[in-house]
Amino acid sequence: MLTRKFSLEVPRPRPGDNLADTERCLAALPFKDVETTLSALRHLPETLRRGNWRVTVTLGARTGGGWRLLAVEPGDTTASHWGVALDGGTTTLAASLVDLKTGEVKVTSSGLNRQIEVAEDLLTRLQLSGEPEGRERLIRLFRESVNWLLQELAFQAAISSQEITALAFSGNTAMTHFFLGLDPSRLCQEPYLPVVNRPGYHRNNEGLHLALHPEAVIYCLPSVGSYLGGDALAGILVSGIHRQEAVSLLVDIGTNAEIVLGNREWLIAAAGAAGPALEGGVMAAGMRAAPGVIERIRVDPITGAIDYHPPKGKVKGLCGSAVVDLLAGLLLAGIIDRAGRFTGERDYLEIVPASATATGEPLILSQQDVKNFIRTKGAVTAAVETLMGAVGIRPQELEYFLVAGAFGEHMDVEAAVTLGLYPDLPRERLLALGNTSLAGARLALLAQEARQELEDLSQRITYVELNASKEFMDRFTGGQFFPHTDLSLYPTVRQRLLTLGLLKE
Amino acid sequence: MLTRKFSLEVPRPRPGDNLADTERCLAALPFKDVETTLSALRHLPETLRRGNWRVTVTLGARTGGGWRLLAVEPGDTTASHWGVALDGGTTTLAASLVDLKTGEVKVTSSGLNRQIEVAEDLLTRLQLSGEPEGRERLIRLFRESVNWLLQELAFQAAISSQEITALAFSGNTAMTHFFLGLDPSRLCQEPYLPVVNRPGYHRNNEGLHLALHPEAVIYCLPSVGSYLGGDALAGILVSGIHRQEAVSLLVDIGTNAEIVLGNREWLIAAAGAAGPALEGGVMAAGMRAAPGVIERIRVDPITGAIDYHPPKGKVKGLCGSAVVDLLAGLLLAGIIDRAGRFTGERDYLEIVPASATATGEPLILSQQDVKNFIRTKGAVTAAVETLMGAVGIRPQELEYFLVAGAFGEHMDVEAAVTLGLYPDLPRERLLALGNTSLAGARLALLAQEARQELEDLSQRITYVELNASKEFMDRFTGGQFFPHTDLSLYPTVRQRLLTLGLLKE
Repeated sequence: MLTRKFSLEVPRPRPGDNLADTERCLAALPFKDVETTLSALRHLPETLRRGNWRVTVTLGARTGGGWRLLAVEPGDTTASHWGVALDGGTTTLAASLVDLKTGEVKVTSSGLNRQIEVAEDLLTRLQLSGEPEGRERLIRLFRESVNWLLQELAFQAAISSQEITALAFSGNTAMTHFFLGLDPSRLCQEPYLPVVNRPGYHRNNEGLHLALHPEAVIYCLPSVGSYLGGDALAGILVSGIHRQEAVSLLVDIGTNAEIVLGNREWLIAAAGAAGPALEGGVMAAGMRAAPGVIERIRVDPITGAIDYHPPKGKVKGLCGSAVVDLLAGLLLAGIIDRAGRFTGERDYLEIVPASATATGEPLILSQQDVKNFIRTKGAVTAAVETLMGAVGIRPQELEYFLVAGAFGEHMDVEAAVTLGLYPDLPRERLLALGNTSLAGARLALLAQEARQELEDLSQRITYVELNASKEFMDRFTGGQFFPHTDLSLYPTVRQRLLTLGLLKE
Repeated sequence: MLTRKFSLEVPRPRPGDNLADTERCLAALPFKDVETTLSALRHLPETLRRGNWRVTVTLGARTGGGWRLLAVEPGDTTASHWGVALDGGTTTLAASLVDLKTGEVKVTSSGLNRQIEVAEDLLTRLQLSGEPEGRERLIRLFRESVNWLLQELAFQAAISSQEITALAFSGNTAMTHFFLGLDPSRLCQEPYLPVVNRPGYHRNNEGLHLALHPEAVIYCLPSVGSYLGGDALAGILVSGIHRQEAVSLLVDIGTNAEIVLGNREWLIAAAGAAGPALEGGVMAAGMRAAPGVIERIRVDPITGAIDYHPPKGKVKGLCGSAVVDLLAGLLLAGIIDRAGRFTGERDYLEIVPASATATGEPLILSQQDVKNFIRTKGAVTAAVETLMGAVGIRPQELEYFLVAGAFGEHMDVEAAVTLGLYPDLPRERLLALGNTSLAGARLALLAQEARQELEDLSQRITYVELNASKEFMDRFTGGQFFPHTDLSLYPTVRQRLLTLGLLKE
């Protein structure tokens, strides 16, 4: 736990027992050298007497161990002990209100990162943050996004957000900087140095102004460096690949893609922009499920007919999983070829007729949309292969291919293998882990051991700079094929293409 | 030291060395698990580059050990490292600006406690602090008094008060509460419980609003209880009686009197109001040396003529040491008797003629003035004797009789013995220690060992409640004699009275 609550029966003062109020409380705790907080001491005498010498003490974790007296309440309030796990993404923030008494999630919610008002892409935000004015604005927008979400959680759980005494934050390195009010502008300037990789424990009243208890403990998951943040370490922690003997690979494809390969003895990682390739065009912004967004598409491999479960209201776009469904279906229907080109005469395809869309224009898949997608896919494949090549591991040798993040969560595994996004392994070795950033934040919120593991991980991982790698560039250029240039790596896809007559022996 | 400064040559980032700015700094320090402060991290990247990777780091002590990163400055600023030792008295505040590089005092200054505007006496202030409004006002006045003094020190040393990163506060328990913004009202209500006895380490930005660096470390000397505060422990620390084999006695006579008796094996203490007995009447407020205040008086034992060194300007009153001179002189001249009564017909004495006083009225010593004094003297004597009686120590067995505070500093030892304020020991065993509260605060500012000694002392001392003691009341009633009812305890005074014909064998 980041915070612990103790219900105390404080011995009443008697003649000859003139312990001061504070020492009287502290003596009833199982810890020594508890740091006191003046805001707590200011209310302590009144609280002790109002509670008739039964009070509940909240302690917060400190950097380097030990505890801090964070609050004292009259009576036994241990039934109400709240913490928040927060995943602060470039586009979306997700948070869970956790009942620290049981460790259970009471409510989870999400919201947009309001920094999007300033710029959709991270690079522009980092550049703007080089100037104090831009930085202040971005920090403020991020704080507003977080506070909106905290208020939302509190509202849904019918508590006051001031009752929340602990928060664990997981995000990429840039978002961690914005969250802490630090200057992230050097993250995009050589030699790409963060202000801090292991921020550890802070207090809300260190100028963070979060909608939490003023003395709340804030723990930020550590980063490895500019391009590998707390969210990636959360992924490792949740996946457990760092504890296993067999080698596994973990990918998280969002605005950026992070890839980690290894086992309990070694871990190497790479990261890079997955780019806007998966956004725009047929894609609804943020790839999130929302009203008007198609989540699933089926293409008949014989007739090429497109079928989808109509969303509520007019169609606004496709979410990521539907794009993968669509492209895999079009490949198997022979409407696009393995290089992503439309076969025959057409250079676009109508997915949704004008009559069914929100704009009144038909929803179109253009040649450029497919090219964008295949570039992204090529980048991810190249990164994965470069990393595996660096340690001489072949795809078949992977124990697990694990996919973190919303992208993997709703993805049809067969479609992803067909396009070459996932390797062609036995399907039980392809696993989607969901929002591991949020799950990792929750573990960090609940257990000191988890936080220690994260701190250790942050110093254990070897980061591989892909942009500096000629091998990566070669693989990237050569790898823009569905599912791969080398079909022997995709035996089940090859078999299906053969069966459908799209490939000759 | 409460704070330490380190000049660091931080390794410049190079390709392959992508340590974050913070970890790059911390790695150059000889400590692990240093707690970071967001305000320091916010300026760190700019500071590192402005200083061309040479920076000076200030670390502050934490409760329970370890260090906190408090500030980072460009270049080598170790030459400028300032702390303040502060003695916060009921009437007067005194403070020293200490060069933490050398431990030397750069400048010392003092000022009035502005709470006097509300009430001269402590009890009234404590009662007023039971209401939030009164409390807030008294806390604000105390803070203003402290901040005025801090600004004064900074002005005299030609530095900014923001450069001061450490402060050690010594005061009685009530002043320590006001200083920390805590409610002291229960100090005067049974069972006399402080909010806190061992406040330990705090940060200026915990709402203290002191004219110091915002992240400055504030250490408050611990108290034993409501009536025995950090100033008394400072006295013990400075006197060293707690380290010696022989038994010594330490008294501090101010608005309150605190008495400590013991050695390295045991320490017992008592405290009580010395009362307004030494104030008012012929006394100038606060007993402080000031323009118009007579500091020394001589009474001719044969003629009874009063002689004093005229102060600058018109006479406003006498300071404490002059009152003691005067009464001892009047006793030896036979103008007052051992019970404090004027002999002969008179019931008052003109000390300064109307022509020489600021008011244009003669300065008068009334019978009531002498009665007030003898009551105070009786109370101090009774307290000392009760404490010694409790452990079966006789005055002659004392190794040292030590006097702390301004009262003892300017006192004529012979006059004090003549009146029975001090015991009749060989004079080399009667020592005045000066302002031990300030000296003790300076030790606490400079050495962790001193702070540890104070924390240990606060738990080692047995406090004796005098008001509950029948013996004290008996001694108090019977003890209102100059120098004592039992003259055998005062052989040199007895001899002098005999010589002057004021006593018959």
